[in-house]
Amino acid sequence: MVEAVFMLPALLIAVYHGERDTVYGFLTAIVITVAAALLLYLLCRKARKGFYAREGLVCVGASWIMMSLLGCLPFYFSGEIPRFIDAMFETVSGFTTTGASILPEVESLSMGNLYWRSFTHWLGGMGVLVFVLAIGRGREKNDGYTMHLLRAESPGPKVEKLVPKMRDTTKILYFIYFFLTVLNVLFLLAGKMPLFDAVCTAFGTAGTGGFGIKNDSIAGYSPYLQNVCTVFMLLFGVNFSCYYMLAIRQVKNVFRDEELRFYLGMVAGSILLIAWNVRGFYGSIGETFRHAAFQVASIVTTTGFATTDFDLWPSFSRAILLSLMIIGACAGSTGGGFKCGRALLLIKSLRRNVRQILHPRKVQVVRVNGQMVAERVLDNTNAYLAAYAFIVVFSFIVISIDGFTPMTNFSAVMACFNNIGPGLEGVGPTCNFGDYGLVSKAMLIIDMLAGRLEIFPILILFSRSTWIGR
Amino acid sequence: MVEAVFMLPALLIAVYHGERDTVYGFLTAIVITVAAALLLYLLCRKARKGFYAREGLVCVGASWIMMSLLGCLPFYFSGEIPRFIDAMFETVSGFTTTGASILPEVESLSMGNLYWRSFTHWLGGMGVLVFVLAIGRGREKNDGYTMHLLRAESPGPKVEKLVPKMRDTTKILYFIYFFLTVLNVLFLLAGKMPLFDAVCTAFGTAGTGGFGIKNDSIAGYSPYLQNVCTVFMLLFGVNFSCYYMLAIRQVKNVFRDEELRFYLGMVAGSILLIAWNVRGFYGSIGETFRHAAFQVASIVTTTGFATTDFDLWPSFSRAILLSLMIIGACAGSTGGGFKCGRALLLIKSLRRNVRQILHPRKVQVVRVNGQMVAERVLDNTNAYLAAYAFIVVFSFIVISIDGFTPMTNFSAVMACFNNIGPGLEGVGPTCNFGDYGLVSKAMLIIDMLAGRLEIFPILILFSRSTWIGR
Repeated sequence: MVEAVFMLPALLIAVYHGERDTVYGFLTAIVITVAAALLLYLLCRKARKGFYAREGLVCVGASWIMMSLLGCLPFYFSGEIPRFIDAMFETVSGFTTTGASILPEVESLSMGNLYWRSFTHWLGGMGVLVFVLAIGRGREKNDGYTMHLLRAESPGPKVEKLVPKMRDTTKILYFIYFFLTVLNVLFLLAGKMPLFDAVCTAFGTAGTGGFGIKNDSIAGYSPYLQNVCTVFMLLFGVNFSCYYMLAIRQVKNVFRDEELRFYLGMVAGSILLIAWNVRGFYGSIGETFRHAAFQVASIVTTTGFATTDFDLWPSFSRAILLSLMIIGACAGSTGGGFKCGRALLLIKSLRRNVRQILHPRKVQVVRVNGQMVAERVLDNTNAYLAAYAFIVVFSFIVISIDGFTPMTNFSAVMACFNNIGPGLEGVGPTCNFGDYGLVSKAMLIIDMLAGRLEIFPILILFSRSTWIGR
Repeated sequence: MVEAVFMLPALLIAVYHGERDTVYGFLTAIVITVAAALLLYLLCRKARKGFYAREGLVCVGASWIMMSLLGCLPFYFSGEIPRFIDAMFETVSGFTTTGASILPEVESLSMGNLYWRSFTHWLGGMGVLVFVLAIGRGREKNDGYTMHLLRAESPGPKVEKLVPKMRDTTKILYFIYFFLTVLNVLFLLAGKMPLFDAVCTAFGTAGTGGFGIKNDSIAGYSPYLQNVCTVFMLLFGVNFSCYYMLAIRQVKNVFRDEELRFYLGMVAGSILLIAWNVRGFYGSIGETFRHAAFQVASIVTTTGFATTDFDLWPSFSRAILLSLMIIGACAGSTGGGFKCGRALLLIKSLRRNVRQILHPRKVQVVRVNGQMVAERVLDNTNAYLAAYAFIVVFSFIVISIDGFTPMTNFSAVMACFNNIGPGLEGVGPTCNFGDYGLVSKAMLIIDMLAGRLEIFPILILFSRSTWIGR
């Protein structure tokens, strides 16, 4: 129902611009979406029982698949993306804030579809179910329901309550998200970007998605606008609880936050190294730093905008970008990837392991920001890395069947699974995913969903033991 | 001292063939090695105190570096590898059973050096310190000393005693190793391979090293000889405790061994998929299967011999080979890589994690071969994966400075760290590592050592807290 409502602005834009096919597409999509919602309501009305972690994960996994199936209908029915798997790929890429596209060029899309395409990023960035929880009154009064859903949908090794009530936490998060997005639009408008462009670009930035509305992504805009994008991409890659702490004036805690320091240090280091490595590629030092900073921000936050074809950069810079792709932004942000927080936990847990070998009789604990990390969180982080590795290897083998170069395939899997968008070589910033076959596209769709929902909802959804017995 | 003794056969071969420079190289090397041994003996005579895990790890890490520094002297002083870093690279590649070479062609090497080069594989395969333990009377009578050294030097998530005494276990392991090597030589001789070739090839196979003595590796030998290599490579990739169980007639346990099943299943599956994928590349089905089986065996056991340039194979086959590189052979074999046993543990631990989410109140354990796996082993396996991931990412960035393609660099790191030898593209089976710069070669040397010794000895050796206070 919420999705159908969200389609209305796109419909109005299509009507305003007299895009007949797109209007037809959205009308059909809205009718089907509403019908599906009613059907699900009727079917599931009585089915409610206990709601625990399992139910939360299954619910989120299934909702995202359903949402994508319905969300791709406007593209499909308007005829602008004639093959269903392509429409599905584009929509999943939107909702998961990946930004990988099967379209060779985007400027021929109608305004309505362009708007919808960018809006899926904004919706997916913070999570649709979280949104429903934030706005809804909700039949469930207990916090467990909200907690399980939020845990399953939000990125990061653990989800913390900012305020005692989980539902209030979601409201605060969405308020910060909305506020930053509006701020982004205003800054873009100040640089004389047209309103439509500004809104769509802000959606792509806020969700760290990366769908542009121009064929050359952000390259055609002025240096000021590019820098605005750089700054806002980095801002949306920060754990949102940092903004909440800033708002309640706990400034010290923010600057002591180890994940934030790790993230900012990594970004600064990468920009310096790349700027040094690509010196001579651009006219001035300013331009070099602008491109280096933009690309680093775009990749580390897994947004995927581009101002230059970084696939032409030297190997060293590409290696840094590829590594940033894997690590990604902060937990609790809209960015994807493995997350800085997890990387930090792994480093600390590895150090603990070494200490344990050296002093086998001493009990060693892992601390982040001075607080002890529960063994359970460490276990889950390690399990996440293992699942990550298996999925990457498996997907890499599957999509290799289409015969592209190993680096194309590897970076395609990385770009989709980490929700980045562009990869290297055959799926570099100037290329697209359209040439992959049906099986590969389906695999990459699963990768994008698994990446955005952090594997477990999708794993649980397709796990046999979820559905049989206890 | 033992190393100096092991140089004697190579010296004799050089003398027999009248290779003046090589004789000079070995004589100088032996003098320096003996001098170093005496110096170390004098310095360390009094230093012995307690010997625990830390001491075992540091001892193994330092010994391997020392051994390589001395082992590369014959190449260097004979003038056949004029740059020291190259000689060091070649020797570390030998001892770690990697088989990566900086030599554009090997046939111009003297017989003495060729023999020594292959023999380093055989020594490194089972571990030099283990050998010393197996043959020596040893001043230490307690088993802890042997255990800590063996643990640090042997590959796999855990080291088991085959018989109550650790020292006897090492004897049994070396006997099996020696027996299989002799068997391999006999089978090769039966196919009319010259004695020198047969011995060197068997050394390369037994240690799963991969240094050949021909420029075209094994491609020039007859199909029979290639098949013998395939079979023996696979045999040396099996956990040696399986052979011990066979010897004491516990046949059932061997065939129930989950790691062995995983390994054989993976090998069979890969051969079938690759044979299907490269159909039409070769004249007959037999030839296709021969090449597919040889390359799979060579890569999965991390040997690195080649009968064909698999870099020309389609992407799908290369993707499978790249994945096999990562997984590697069985724990407790001479093969490298992540090890099937560890992969199995990770899969099971991941499944446990999913079950834990579904049934949060049930205590879940991981079992392999019916036995419960200690949480400590699981923790270490996870830590190993994390360390593995960090080292790969870090090395990849460092060696990218030389400007080769990302796939060249990525597969170079993989090939060195997993002790395989050849990678893809610029370091494919027909290429070599000679073009990398000094820093990259040093990085790859560390990768090879870290890969062979399974990270922790090297990590502990360079860890600050090992050396300061308690």
